[in-house]
Amino acid sequence: MPYTGRVIASTPSSDERAARFLSPAGRARVQQAVTELHEWLGSRLSTTQAVRAQHGRGEAYGPVQPPDAVAWPESAEDVSRIVATCSRHETPVIAFGAGTSLEGHVTAPYGGVCIDFSRMNEVLSVNPADADCVVQAGVTREQLNAYLRDTGLFFPVDPGANATLGGMASTRASGTTTIRYGAMTRNVMALQIVLADGRIVRVGTRAAKSSTGYDLVRLLVGSEGTLGVITEITLRLYGVPEKTVGATCVFPALRGAVDAVVEIIQSGASVSRIEFLDELQVRACNRYSQLSMPEQPTLFLEFSGTAESIDGQVARAEEIAQSNGGAAFEWAADDSARARLWKARHSAYFAALALRPGCECLVADVAVPISQLAAAVADVRRDIDAAGLLAPIVGHVGDGNFHVLFLLQPGAADEWQRAEKVYDAMIERALRVGGTCTGEHGIGRGKRTKLVAEYGADVVELMRAIKGVWDPQGILNPGKIFL
Amino acid sequence: MPYTGRVIASTPSSDERAARFLSPAGRARVQQAVTELHEWLGSRLSTTQAVRAQHGRGEAYGPVQPPDAVAWPESAEDVSRIVATCSRHETPVIAFGAGTSLEGHVTAPYGGVCIDFSRMNEVLSVNPADADCVVQAGVTREQLNAYLRDTGLFFPVDPGANATLGGMASTRASGTTTIRYGAMTRNVMALQIVLADGRIVRVGTRAAKSSTGYDLVRLLVGSEGTLGVITEITLRLYGVPEKTVGATCVFPALRGAVDAVVEIIQSGASVSRIEFLDELQVRACNRYSQLSMPEQPTLFLEFSGTAESIDGQVARAEEIAQSNGGAAFEWAADDSARARLWKARHSAYFAALALRPGCECLVADVAVPISQLAAAVADVRRDIDAAGLLAPIVGHVGDGNFHVLFLLQPGAADEWQRAEKVYDAMIERALRVGGTCTGEHGIGRGKRTKLVAEYGADVVELMRAIKGVWDPQGILNPGKIFL
Repeated sequence: MPYTGRVIASTPSSDERAARFLSPAGRARVQQAVTELHEWLGSRLSTTQAVRAQHGRGEAYGPVQPPDAVAWPESAEDVSRIVATCSRHETPVIAFGAGTSLEGHVTAPYGGVCIDFSRMNEVLSVNPADADCVVQAGVTREQLNAYLRDTGLFFPVDPGANATLGGMASTRASGTTTIRYGAMTRNVMALQIVLADGRIVRVGTRAAKSSTGYDLVRLLVGSEGTLGVITEITLRLYGVPEKTVGATCVFPALRGAVDAVVEIIQSGASVSRIEFLDELQVRACNRYSQLSMPEQPTLFLEFSGTAESIDGQVARAEEIAQSNGGAAFEWAADDSARARLWKARHSAYFAALALRPGCECLVADVAVPISQLAAAVADVRRDIDAAGLLAPIVGHVGDGNFHVLFLLQPGAADEWQRAEKVYDAMIERALRVGGTCTGEHGIGRGKRTKLVAEYGADVVELMRAIKGVWDPQGILNPGKIFL
Repeated sequence: MPYTGRVIASTPSSDERAARFLSPAGRARVQQAVTELHEWLGSRLSTTQAVRAQHGRGEAYGPVQPPDAVAWPESAEDVSRIVATCSRHETPVIAFGAGTSLEGHVTAPYGGVCIDFSRMNEVLSVNPADADCVVQAGVTREQLNAYLRDTGLFFPVDPGANATLGGMASTRASGTTTIRYGAMTRNVMALQIVLADGRIVRVGTRAAKSSTGYDLVRLLVGSEGTLGVITEITLRLYGVPEKTVGATCVFPALRGAVDAVVEIIQSGASVSRIEFLDELQVRACNRYSQLSMPEQPTLFLEFSGTAESIDGQVARAEEIAQSNGGAAFEWAADDSARARLWKARHSAYFAALALRPGCECLVADVAVPISQLAAAVADVRRDIDAAGLLAPIVGHVGDGNFHVLFLLQPGAADEWQRAEKVYDAMIERALRVGGTCTGEHGIGRGKRTKLVAEYGADVVELMRAIKGVWDPQGILNPGKIFL
């Protein structure tokens, strides 16, 4: 192998992909694949316009890009045969969970076959002593937690949407409980995947830790369906805490809230959630969820642990909050009040939409070192106001991760451009202070230029090189992550 | 790119490496690299026999395989120039931290240049508000924690040895605190690495989480110097718990101890360490550390958290232990008693060695789902006794990870063979029940066949493909991980 001084294989560019997949020959290959699959799958494959459109965007903004066909496998062997058929005909393959992705991960810009996992939704095993379980990729997180209800265990990763666990693994999802339980990175123990040529392999183990070779589990978690199609997932579970209490706390400004959060975390308190809502988002939630919270910067807090440990910790956290300018905690008196509180938080997206009837929502996502959070939020608020936009802000404040919900008139190009300019500046600032262009939504189609901005061409080339050798035809979810 | 149905590039096999590196032409290239480096580095490069031998094995068993030269860089730029020179002359490059690896990661089976990181041992920054820090790869964990002493923060990953953080990242180290704080996987936020061609790149961010493209940080953590040379590491830190208490608890048999551990963990108690020592290891520690523990299966436990939360949790844990047949907790009365306890645990290796003066120690390492731990340990104990070997057992019981310390006569081939047979059976059993052939020691040279046993040829091929494109010459730590 001659030494080139550079990596020796990489995934095709957009232009190469377009030439390969969208040329008449490429389109004929796709049609051949669809025909063969249809003969085998019968009614488990659809090419109707409505079904294809439903699978062409997910909850992302931007254009719908439908696949040529949607297939419903019922086993890893089915997935293997679908992928092998697509590989034989050099046809794009796009895995589809619940479609809740916000960055266009499920679009089919080069056509191809969408694999819908809704019929692979079985919980295969739960091992209480080991606190783990094995699920098919189409199981949703709410379904899993309902299934676990009588075991005393639960799966904590909570991105808000009722996403599938396959989708959550693929996008390295996280959410409100990351501060305590980590993102999918920490909670996926093993995966069964179908490779680009249809082979079925397993990576990872059921041991709590392993140092066996390269960590392919972590490489696949967050690879957005571009390296393999996840069919089965082994997940870590946790004991349901004996006691959980929820509260809200208002602050005159975000700075004090962030300082309080840093101190609370470092005090060792058993925080399970710390969320931030700005004034505008609180107003939206008040209207949408019939609440009457003071319309000020607000923390939603949750503490959980053993009964005897919680009260002291919470009292201490309240002291810390007050010493940083926070008001007294408003307690969620019981489980149902707590559930209402978190339902309101989870409804933030719909509450925001309701602020401006008929609007679409561009959800921005960055994460910064927590010391930079107050300044980053203040800066973007200033930019939003200067641009004359309506956009509440919410954040997983313990992770330095925040979202701006830009509420935009569909088709109002000028508004969208102003929003994108504010978003670009927000990302640039995040990167400048050591943060990331996406805390939890992934790259998908929307942030491919930002991947380069964050890591530079050399590092992106290292990623492309992996893609190039694992998927030499570039059929796995083409047009995502890489330009 | 024609579709081959397989990955299209992979790292050379042992035979190909031997032909390339050990042929007269290969040896001449290495000599040329060493000559060029010597001209530049002067006294910061050594080719003396003694220095080379010191760098040829680490604490592993097996033959010493010295490099041709040892270089002491003082910056990432120095490392870059060393690697680029080696790349120009197709010369192996082996990164060397503290040499505490147990699986031969630092051996130089094909000769080449060892990069000793002892002069890159600066803590570059500590960010208290973000609870993170940036260190050069040669900083050791004890050095970092001494540096942090006045900040109220600490770095928790504790493999026992005073390893460098570069070495710990490279081998995906973990240890006694993994149950609470996770392994290096969880605690490395970002890396600066030198690629095989000498380019310096950064991966990861200082944000608490990110979903930007492939998780190259986690790919590099545990890659054992085969994908890049780590020069700088950004690490997560944690607040020093307000209160920490330690105790020991004896059980009639391991089964009860494991059941107790599972219940204690799921109760949500703030356990920071749970270690298991078998009767023989307790006897060894009693002798070596002048203790008088009952010579029975014993748990070493540590709880930490806020002062008000600890006492109740510990009382509950003790109840759980007793309901599973454990005796009353023996308390480490104060910090110095607790330090003595953990010093005894950390001295387990030397205590075991002292059981059989003049012996060498083969340290075995597997991890299994915790439900399988008691049976796995009982089985290996039976095999050890049947083989007439002397071998205490210790374990990070909360992680299902345990070590057998085979105490063997140097050169007694028959004894070593019996030990290896027991070890092989131990690994086979671990894999059969969903475990891993190495919980924390890595693959190195010693476990390359086990990597294949654990994952199968297809998955190892996926790993080799990455190696093949990132390091097309195969110069980065050749002969490790892959056969």
